[in-house]
Amino acid sequence: MSCEICKPKYRPLFETIFWRVHLVPDQAYLGRCVVVLKRHAGTLSMLTADEWKDFGQMVVRIELVINKAFEPDMFNWTCMANDAYLEEYPEPHIHWHIRPRYAKPVALAGIAFEDPDFGKHYDRERKNIVSDDVQRVIRERLLHYA
Amino acid sequence: MSCEICKPKYRPLFETIFWRVHLVPDQAYLGRCVVVLKRHAGTLSMLTADEWKDFGQMVVRIELVINKAFEPDMFNWTCMANDAYLEEYPEPHIHWHIRPRYAKPVALAGIAFEDPDFGKHYDRERKNIVSDDVQRVIRERLLHYA
Repeated sequence: MSCEICKPKYRPLFETIFWRVHLVPDQAYLGRCVVVLKRHAGTLSMLTADEWKDFGQMVVRIELVINKAFEPDMFNWTCMANDAYLEEYPEPHIHWHIRPRYAKPVALAGIAFEDPDFGKHYDRERKNIVSDDVQRVIRERLLHYA
Repeated sequence: MSCEICKPKYRPLFETIFWRVHLVPDQAYLGRCVVVLKRHAGTLSMLTADEWKDFGQMVVRIELVINKAFEPDMFNWTCMANDAYLEEYPEPHIHWHIRPRYAKPVALAGIAFEDPDFGKHYDRERKNIVSDDVQRVIRERLLHYA
């Protein structure tokens, strides 16, 4: 097993029983996080009833935290793992991307975080890898409500 | 209330207690379906524990049905509702897109269904709106296993 997702690269923002929520460095969508299943499993069909129940509670918590911190207008949720299938022996590990979406820019740490495609599909080409200092500011604002 | 999603345009493939699964006309990803919550609610935070439990069971069923019918390699799941926010008074209604992804083409009804971006993000520009006849063939193949 060489699954990269099993070895978290970042400190989690918070954890639930079965899920771990991490802020990611690309903050093109302010507050963007990844939600990782704590055990190694590759498809949504493999989730247990308890893991879905806990997922639902995690969704309420992370949406509430981001709503209080940055007041987005809505959220995009995706579960993909496409990259895993570029490997000769795919080892997919269930994880979710949550992208908060904003009708208006949000000013934080001297940066105007914008969402020029609000109301449309997110744009993966538009990246905003923020510095460690800015990540810390975003993280602390979120943790204040977590 | 003028929510378009509350009034289904297509006959469902199948229903569970809280969700309705519809095949969609754009079959760029063979077997692509949309999964609609039967009541009007706008964000994942609003789902009840029972709706999540039923969602998990629906995921097992639709992934199994598509696996048996067309043998994809994996699935992309997304929950967006971006379009709703282009309206002056957004009325989002929770729905999921499921796109089966394929390492190899699948031949059906005289068409080679291909997935040239397998292992990468789906391509929304690549469309394949199939005829009513072809939709019927896809639908019947799926229903055979539903």
